[in-house]
Amino acid sequence: MKLYNFEMAPNARRVRVFVAEKGLDIPMQDVDLGSRAQLNDDYMATNPMAEVPSLELDDGTIITESTAICRYLEEVFPDPPLMGRNPLEKAQVMMWDRRVEQHGFAAVAEGFRNLNPFFENRALTGPVDYEQIPALGERGKARFPQFLDMLEKRLAESEFIAGDRYSIADITALVTIDFSRTIKGEIGDRSHVQRWNEAVSSRESAQA
Amino acid sequence: MKLYNFEMAPNARRVRVFVAEKGLDIPMQDVDLGSRAQLNDDYMATNPMAEVPSLELDDGTIITESTAICRYLEEVFPDPPLMGRNPLEKAQVMMWDRRVEQHGFAAVAEGFRNLNPFFENRALTGPVDYEQIPALGERGKARFPQFLDMLEKRLAESEFIAGDRYSIADITALVTIDFSRTIKGEIGDRSHVQRWNEAVSSRESAQA
Repeated sequence: MKLYNFEMAPNARRVRVFVAEKGLDIPMQDVDLGSRAQLNDDYMATNPMAEVPSLELDDGTIITESTAICRYLEEVFPDPPLMGRNPLEKAQVMMWDRRVEQHGFAAVAEGFRNLNPFFENRALTGPVDYEQIPALGERGKARFPQFLDMLEKRLAESEFIAGDRYSIADITALVTIDFSRTIKGEIGDRSHVQRWNEAVSSRESAQA
Repeated sequence: MKLYNFEMAPNARRVRVFVAEKGLDIPMQDVDLGSRAQLNDDYMATNPMAEVPSLELDDGTIITESTAICRYLEEVFPDPPLMGRNPLEKAQVMMWDRRVEQHGFAAVAEGFRNLNPFFENRALTGPVDYEQIPALGERGKARFPQFLDMLEKRLAESEFIAGDRYSIADITALVTIDFSRTIKGEIGDRSHVQRWNEAVSSRESAQA
């Protein structure tokens, strides 16, 4: 296996943290998004969506989409379980992972990509150029505190986001909160989010 | 079990088609999004995200997010499999389902919710009101043909979207294409998408 990676790409970090929690050692090859190497013909031949990360299996099969890569790794390397151990847990982990992704990760990404001059004309990932929409960037920034409020309420009643065990939903939320530096996001005085953030950030996997 | 449903909500239809393909008979209770019943205290008490569909289990547990509901049903009622039969299939089904969702479903939803007067001040689902962003609506409309081109390329090499078997990715794409009427989307002369669309639309589940 080989993971196509870029250090600063938050979706790549989701997979790296997942791999670290599994205790796996997967070779990585960097795709320099800074110089837009994901749009090179060589990379597009393996991944026409021009997105990072992607996982290449030993037979050359490519899996893209960070949660699909994680799903594959969860099936092949089930311990420790990071996506639930029974039908209800599996559904609840997925539910929370998607809530974090839609209300948190997507909001930060919309803020960052629509307001930062680096992404001029590149407001979406992928092979097609799209103009930035400043109003969408501002909406992303406005949504982020709502996301933190959702987390605060949840973490007041639960040790981890999807329940009493660390899961992929915690990984997505950790990456989202670190990614929110790009839009000057702050946890503020949300004490449950603070408690949780210290716990997940101090795991060795958070360095990945 | 009970499914909170709204006939015209595309995410609810994804679950209804999935349930029909499984041959299940799950009681449904309508939540009238037309009169914004999802924002009532009663419904918000069960689902603070104020989204439809949600699945209530017999012990009162609520699962939201359409793909998380499908994941639960897939685990409890594995036949016929709609989310893959082995690790690679499971990952590939998820990869394609997400591609369809991000590049197709989301584009149509952005177009519809940001351009239709009914959604004035309600450009996002959920309890918080957000203004429409017309430029985002236009971008959604512009992205839809790109999504169809992706499907056309894929369906030139594959009978169904995730491979040689019908899966949840076909359900998401079917619902997306029907939903695209709201932005005047058209398959046009994409012959592989036409062939596939006729096949999946003629399944009994498409009536759900």
